[in-house]
Amino acid sequence: MCASKLKVARRSSFGLTSHRVMPISRRSKIEALAERHGRTVMWRPFTLGAAFKVTGAQGLSRTPLKREYAWHDWQRLARLKRVPFNLPADHPKVGLPAIRAFYHLERKDPHAAARLAKHIIVGYFREGLDTDDPNAIAHLASLLGLDPGMMLAGMIDPEIKTLARRYGEEAVTRGVFGSPWIFVDGEPFWGSDRLAMVDRWLAEGAW
Amino acid sequence: MCASKLKVARRSSFGLTSHRVMPISRRSKIEALAERHGRTVMWRPFTLGAAFKVTGAQGLSRTPLKREYAWHDWQRLARLKRVPFNLPADHPKVGLPAIRAFYHLERKDPHAAARLAKHIIVGYFREGLDTDDPNAIAHLASLLGLDPGMMLAGMIDPEIKTLARRYGEEAVTRGVFGSPWIFVDGEPFWGSDRLAMVDRWLAEGAW
Repeated sequence: MCASKLKVARRSSFGLTSHRVMPISRRSKIEALAERHGRTVMWRPFTLGAAFKVTGAQGLSRTPLKREYAWHDWQRLARLKRVPFNLPADHPKVGLPAIRAFYHLERKDPHAAARLAKHIIVGYFREGLDTDDPNAIAHLASLLGLDPGMMLAGMIDPEIKTLARRYGEEAVTRGVFGSPWIFVDGEPFWGSDRLAMVDRWLAEGAW
Repeated sequence: MCASKLKVARRSSFGLTSHRVMPISRRSKIEALAERHGRTVMWRPFTLGAAFKVTGAQGLSRTPLKREYAWHDWQRLARLKRVPFNLPADHPKVGLPAIRAFYHLERKDPHAAARLAKHIIVGYFREGLDTDDPNAIAHLASLLGLDPGMMLAGMIDPEIKTLARRYGEEAVTRGVFGSPWIFVDGEPFWGSDRLAMVDRWLAEGAW
């Protein structure tokens, strides 16, 4: 595993615009939090399919009652945070091409991969980027100055496919069943509502 | 329905001590929050069984991966908040006698019912009160100055049984699938991590 101490796993959901890159914050909330503690974030996109097989559960958007509440809650949270939010009508997508693009790029340039991941996430939740379409991902990558041909080749690379699947399986063996999921020196935190606790854990150490 | 504007539904889990009533805060966090906004809390204990039938899900403690994380997270949270916490080994219980005792008492004295409910919850999570045992509930009630015979009679009252079941079914029709659940003027909030949002909702109104 990577030597980085703060690991953040986000689910597959990723996205983009048609002709321009949307301006997004250079640092996400988790990155700013990590930086305050002299840590770095190691992103680990993964699908939840392997976890769902073990828990017998489905994602929020495929579960009656939970779906209706979650969609309402997300809109409410977006309004509160004044964040543009347009959930794609066919949400959720698995987004394997997006995940593979990340791991392909990460082998060459982890910083560029993290930047791509953030643009994919924002593109998906703001503009309906099709994270299941390799061409859409390659186009977004090109807007970030990356070679789309190189990205497309990576998304069908058998080694990358295996690597992406392995991360999903490894997540389950480490007890991960949801997203976002954060490991701090091996300590698990599930959900963005635990960010304050992550902050305190980093400040005070284990309690 | 009751005229109260702030409704809080808590799950069935309830509990007690053997010879004395544990000292607990007179006002819970949600009650203090409500009071700051000139509101009152209307407690509505219910079982999640009816919701589980609709969602196809199970409780955290009956779901692989989620159970291990949740138990770890609860202990961690209790240490952080410096709250005594001893999860019963056979958690979760359905706690129907506890729920029925609440609704029986509420018909006569809502304030006494709320007080009983808080002692049951603390008794369960601190001392392993058996919430499935009517005698344990009646004994706790007696420590609070209530007539145990009156409480036992209420727990087997067919009208009360029907009422308690109806609240569980009504919760599902209102979209409730988890606990704690809070309604503020009909607006749903799921989870204690949404208390800050409830606070803001009460301060600013709908956004």
